[in-house]
Amino acid sequence: MSSATDSYIHQHEQRFLDELLEFLRIPSISTLPEHKNDVARAAQFVADGLKRAGIEHVEVIATGKHPLVYGDWLHAPSKPTVLCYGHYDVQPPDPLELWQSPPFEPSVRNGNIYARGACDDKGQAYMHVKAIEALRASNGGTLPVNVKFLIEGEEEVGGESISEYVPKHKDKLKADVALVSDTELFADGIPTLCIGLRGLIYLEIEAKGPARDLHSGMYGGAAPNAVYGLIELLAQAKDANGQIQIPGIYDDVAAPDPAELESWTRLPFSEQEFLKDEVGSTELTGEPEQSVLARVWARPTFEVHGIAGGFTGTGAKTVIPAKAVAKVSLRLVPNQKPERVLSSVKQWVADRTARGIQTEVRVLSAGPAISVNPNHPAIDIATRVFGEMMGKPTVFIRSGGSIPIVGDFATHLGIPTVLMGFGLPDDGLHSPNEKYRISNYYLGIRTIARFLQEYGESASAR
Amino acid sequence: MSSATDSYIHQHEQRFLDELLEFLRIPSISTLPEHKNDVARAAQFVADGLKRAGIEHVEVIATGKHPLVYGDWLHAPSKPTVLCYGHYDVQPPDPLELWQSPPFEPSVRNGNIYARGACDDKGQAYMHVKAIEALRASNGGTLPVNVKFLIEGEEEVGGESISEYVPKHKDKLKADVALVSDTELFADGIPTLCIGLRGLIYLEIEAKGPARDLHSGMYGGAAPNAVYGLIELLAQAKDANGQIQIPGIYDDVAAPDPAELESWTRLPFSEQEFLKDEVGSTELTGEPEQSVLARVWARPTFEVHGIAGGFTGTGAKTVIPAKAVAKVSLRLVPNQKPERVLSSVKQWVADRTARGIQTEVRVLSAGPAISVNPNHPAIDIATRVFGEMMGKPTVFIRSGGSIPIVGDFATHLGIPTVLMGFGLPDDGLHSPNEKYRISNYYLGIRTIARFLQEYGESASAR
Repeated sequence: MSSATDSYIHQHEQRFLDELLEFLRIPSISTLPEHKNDVARAAQFVADGLKRAGIEHVEVIATGKHPLVYGDWLHAPSKPTVLCYGHYDVQPPDPLELWQSPPFEPSVRNGNIYARGACDDKGQAYMHVKAIEALRASNGGTLPVNVKFLIEGEEEVGGESISEYVPKHKDKLKADVALVSDTELFADGIPTLCIGLRGLIYLEIEAKGPARDLHSGMYGGAAPNAVYGLIELLAQAKDANGQIQIPGIYDDVAAPDPAELESWTRLPFSEQEFLKDEVGSTELTGEPEQSVLARVWARPTFEVHGIAGGFTGTGAKTVIPAKAVAKVSLRLVPNQKPERVLSSVKQWVADRTARGIQTEVRVLSAGPAISVNPNHPAIDIATRVFGEMMGKPTVFIRSGGSIPIVGDFATHLGIPTVLMGFGLPDDGLHSPNEKYRISNYYLGIRTIARFLQEYGESASAR
Repeated sequence: MSSATDSYIHQHEQRFLDELLEFLRIPSISTLPEHKNDVARAAQFVADGLKRAGIEHVEVIATGKHPLVYGDWLHAPSKPTVLCYGHYDVQPPDPLELWQSPPFEPSVRNGNIYARGACDDKGQAYMHVKAIEALRASNGGTLPVNVKFLIEGEEEVGGESISEYVPKHKDKLKADVALVSDTELFADGIPTLCIGLRGLIYLEIEAKGPARDLHSGMYGGAAPNAVYGLIELLAQAKDANGQIQIPGIYDDVAAPDPAELESWTRLPFSEQEFLKDEVGSTELTGEPEQSVLARVWARPTFEVHGIAGGFTGTGAKTVIPAKAVAKVSLRLVPNQKPERVLSSVKQWVADRTARGIQTEVRVLSAGPAISVNPNHPAIDIATRVFGEMMGKPTVFIRSGGSIPIVGDFATHLGIPTVLMGFGLPDDGLHSPNEKYRISNYYLGIRTIARFLQEYGESASAR
């Protein structure tokens, strides 16, 4: 990165922060219908930000659900094209009472920004916009590469619209590599590139018992209970070691190769600190024969996120619930086919439903795991730049989370994705008191600017 | 009953109905703190109604929670004293969307009153008040027996206040028999006295996993999930036949004697109609070696009423919940000791809690099962009067529900209770569209008036 770009970033740090705080004030919770207008406002905020940074052809694209924001700058004909992706939607903030400051009134404390979306992904997506602004402003209005932006508002709800948009607009989105900042540093101070993501199947499993809620005195002992029927079913999904008991689930699971497994043992990871500082339970759980990193990166999961149905208010209500719905997800690892896993789950639900209970499985989203080739030229440059910016060798990790769009870019555009994130393991994504370290926000802007600069200098267009 | 009393009831039917509808408009939901004032209004309504009926010394007695209403008429010195009990509080009406007319805007359709509390217990408790009014008005201001009223507002939340009040006011409440109308006819047209009630233990079981809600991508596979921990625990409470697996639970269970079991086989009960018209599931469940009536009247249950915790909103949230609470109850049968059952449950929870999970059991209420001696003189007269009023022999049944106050009357006042109810099996207590048949309301007023009349004529004071 030129010292001019560096100076520009330095001079405008406060404004870059203020703009992000403004972005974070918009409660763009994509899963809650009552926030639809807020999600639209966030899309407009992104579009305006892209225009101010000098991006052209900026569009807010209506979809069946929440808008996509597109924009490009294509005036470097001999240079490669980078497709920058991010998402401006956020997870619901509940439980609200656990937030120390309100989730949509960003609070700057101890060098951090506390707000829903601070790290995931508003803070990280906005780094791309500010890196572009800084590069153009310090290079006479030009950029070292061509760039395209595609920012979505449905990442937290399955990303259906972008997933439909990408295959229909292959020419428009044509690029050499995608750049995504929606992951984290393995540990504070360790430059980290993510080369694998788990897939995700998100389901609702509904159980019906009696035709209506019944009095548990009058009918208890002879009538099926929908909540209990669902409990009986779900409890059979895993054994006490967390091994999934659904037949066929592990059939296609590809184990990481020995070199990758070995590299994980050299990462600065303390099981004790992970338990104490991050999880905060009495002990870790899961498959004892797998390392903790393998459990969260390379093994499938079956998770119950909540059960709705029956009485959960204050006090006592003696009801036999007629209906109950569980929110359930499975994380997938390389080689597992979402369709095959889904069919195993549906068969298992049908086979294991208790008598008197009727069940239904509804699929909210389904996407496979992703692996990135670490030998791609853009990854090579990212690896070097990231390491130099932080003064340490870059490590390759996986993430247990899911970014389905990375799979779409691979399948439909034929391009790999540089997963260069600046979050920290304790940033509390999806949790109360989500935060993002301000210095990592600036580090991200600088690192991305320099990556684009060096990628433009070294590579030529396909 | 004198023809004068009968005529009085006939002439005032419309007003008796209008008064009940007014009573039902008060949303006296005792478990919801936001309805505290409504519960107080309902208590005042009862007090005013007692005064208008000619009851003296009417008091609204403040308690730690919801008021008790007391009143008496004690001008029949050579006659026995009847203690009339009822409750003016109701269950929450949710799920609201299943009501055909709003729960607190009583709707008269097809000869029924539809409203929360129509049958349980406002409609039935108010029959006592109207029977007294009719008897006094048609007998020159006198009554055939002495009466005391004690009406509570916490029946649906465990009845703590009345349960503290009774042992402290034994002299004030001294009586020969208690009269409670909070049960139902075994079937339409069958005069029914209930001589047994199950007890109830109501619990909250809380599970804690991680210190905060976690991202299921980042931590799924290694972090305990509080909702799943609770599911794993609760699923172990019963086997597929509904038999409770908590050690020691069946130790004290007294089986009904063979004569009583035999009498149940002569009741007009169709398992198929019970399944189809009342339960409405695909099949009945529970212990196969027990008859359906034995399952709901004479066997303990373990029921899960709901689980709060995690994400249950619209759409997808991928959270590993930090905390979950289940509402759980056990119904008890004769000879089971609530303290012993509680201690078995607590031990079982401690023993079966999954690793990484911490559990806590909170007791919301606990009361034993009740048996009434069917040979008591008041029961004899009630049996005869009820049968003559309906033109069929009275049957003795049990109820699977719980009326803890009946146990308190037995223990502290040494009196039995006539459980003479006029509800129907499909009245939908605790369910959406609760109803009470208008002709049963009038039948109840007449039958209770005649029972009091004949009890006064036949019996003398202790």
